Amino acid sequence: MYIGIDIGGTNTVIALVGDNCQVKGKVSVATFKDDGYQGLIRIISEKIRDIVSEYHYDLSDIKSIGVGCPGTPDIEQGVILYSCNLGFYNASIRTEIRKYFDLPVFIENDANCAALAESIVGATKDVRDSVTVTLGTGIGCGIIIDKKIYSGFNNAASEMGHCVIDVNGKLCTCGRTGCWETYASAIALKKQAIAAVQQNPHSLIKALVQNDVTKINGEVVFDAYQKGDTVAADIVRTYAKYVAEGLTNIVNILSPEIIAIGGGISGQGERFLSLIRGHVSNNVYCKTVKQTRIRVAQLGNDAGVIGAAMLCMQK
Amino acid sequence: MYIGIDIGGTNTVIALVGDNCQVKGKVSVATFKDDGYQGLIRIISEKIRDIVSEYHYDLSDIKSIGVGCPGTPDIEQGVILYSCNLGFYNASIRTEIRKYFDLPVFIENDANCAALAESIVGATKDVRDSVTVTLGTGIGCGIIIDKKIYSGFNNAASEMGHCVIDVNGKLCTCGRTGCWETYASAIALKKQAIAAVQQNPHSLIKALVQNDVTKINGEVVFDAYQKGDTVAADIVRTYAKYVAEGLTNIVNILSPEIIAIGGGISGQGERFLSLIRGHVSNNVYCKTVKQTRIRVAQLGNDAGVIGAAMLCMQK
Repeated sequence: MYIGIDIGGTNTVIALVGDNCQVKGKVSVATFKDDGYQGLIRIISEKIRDIVSEYHYDLSDIKSIGVGCPGTPDIEQGVILYSCNLGFYNASIRTEIRKYFDLPVFIENDANCAALAESIVGATKDVRDSVTVTLGTGIGCGIIIDKKIYSGFNNAASEMGHCVIDVNGKLCTCGRTGCWETYASAIALKKQAIAAVQQNPHSLIKALVQNDVTKINGEVVFDAYQKGDTVAADIVRTYAKYVAEGLTNIVNILSPEIIAIGGGISGQGERFLSLIRGHVSNNVYCKTVKQTRIRVAQLGNDAGVIGAAMLCMQK
Repeated sequence: MYIGIDIGGTNTVIALVGDNCQVKGKVSVATFKDDGYQGLIRIISEKIRDIVSEYHYDLSDIKSIGVGCPGTPDIEQGVILYSCNLGFYNASIRTEIRKYFDLPVFIENDANCAALAESIVGATKDVRDSVTVTLGTGIGCGIIIDKKIYSGFNNAASEMGHCVIDVNGKLCTCGRTGCWETYASAIALKKQAIAAVQQNPHSLIKALVQNDVTKINGEVVFDAYQKGDTVAADIVRTYAKYVAEGLTNIVNILSPEIIAIGGGISGQGERFLSLIRGHVSNNVYCKTVKQTRIRVAQLGNDAGVIGAAMLCMQK
């Protein structure tokens, strides 16, 4: 039995994960930020004790604790060097958790945890080399090579969201111009849809959100697209092209056997992926070899805690 | 003693490489294309015999033959699946060479061979994870992870030159729009310089080539830049920015400990690299961690044959 923790900008999930990666139980708490990482770890520690006893286990049944967190970790030292979302800077997560539990503690970037989980029990479990891409507020990516997380010499790799695809394009939150996530994140889709609806107020999208454009999201855009709205069709095709441009870059650089796509928009399944696949297969550099497959990630919101719980297997 | 072969679009180099990667001797022949890969291998085989005896060795001293070749290999089968430059399609290089020599034969992409050589005895020899980028006619790249060539599940990875950095940009030879090599190869620099000189005929560059713009190359542009020509300064700064954009993408995706830059332009050394480094360090996503170093590749034209000769060590 393992504890997997997925610290998010808004909520933190603590899960009890079995040897076969099944989530036995989980609890979500608001990510408490008023008292630094120490305050958050104190709350997490209480929740770990709660969940272990709630599911009739004992702390002695727990083999390790794994933590996934946005930002850049020092995995050897068990420290989050920097997390913009959480306001962490040199946060000694491992040391802090070990004040409460005498257990091995592992730290990783949250997107890497999700990719690891998909590679053990999810969409990429049958292959050695894969990439999991989550289209969310930003774009989270994890690279798996030979069934292990690859994160470069400094644990900072796989920031595909911050690869420039339009060198003269829009300013990204990271300070660069034209990063992929500025065009292909879920937030980018929302922005593209709002701009299109403001230009085309007759679009069905506007009716679906009762004229409140702040309610537009990927689901609404795809609903309108399915119902034949031409504005929605343009938005979806343009967005799919942007997603595909970044994925084609990933294929050309890494040639993973599978790219798994997660995030809310991946719930659109084949009607979204089919648009992307066509664009990628037309644009990859090597067309005469076995091709990377693109599929939907399978573990949804559980990917983070499962991957965190399984970090012990990486050592 | 090993044989390393570097098959290029114009010339093929055959080298006798020692256990410590020193090139004992080499010979260059025109890449004969009139009789398919079989005709080329026949000529190469004669040259292997010649060079072995010329340097007073015996075929029994040779442990293996390695071949680097532009295109996509099937390294298990020893086949070049496709090489646009050479017109090879499913070329059974290993089988053909073994008609002449009863020795182990290894095949790889030429840019991967160069990266491997740099990682064994060149600019990246002190680190486990590196990328070697050659700015030539196109952009050749090789990824080394844990001291081994990484080429994805289908041997087609590391085509960074064909990552889009300008999604609405110039058409690339590969069919995509805005690939990095369209802006940052040596040929791209030449085109940028010719266009700039045509707009600014007073530039010193034009005098340096006696008004024959077809003679413009990176060396001429840098000469003019060093002598204070403002047109050349603009060309160099723009080109360095394009090179840096792609390198920043590589850092964000792979976080190699070192990126080595090869190709003729790398001969400009620090006056070129200093421009690039500034741009990369301002633009990488994770600035709070140890940073990727960018340096000049060390092995020049020998990288290909040395890496090919050392392919046997990868198995």
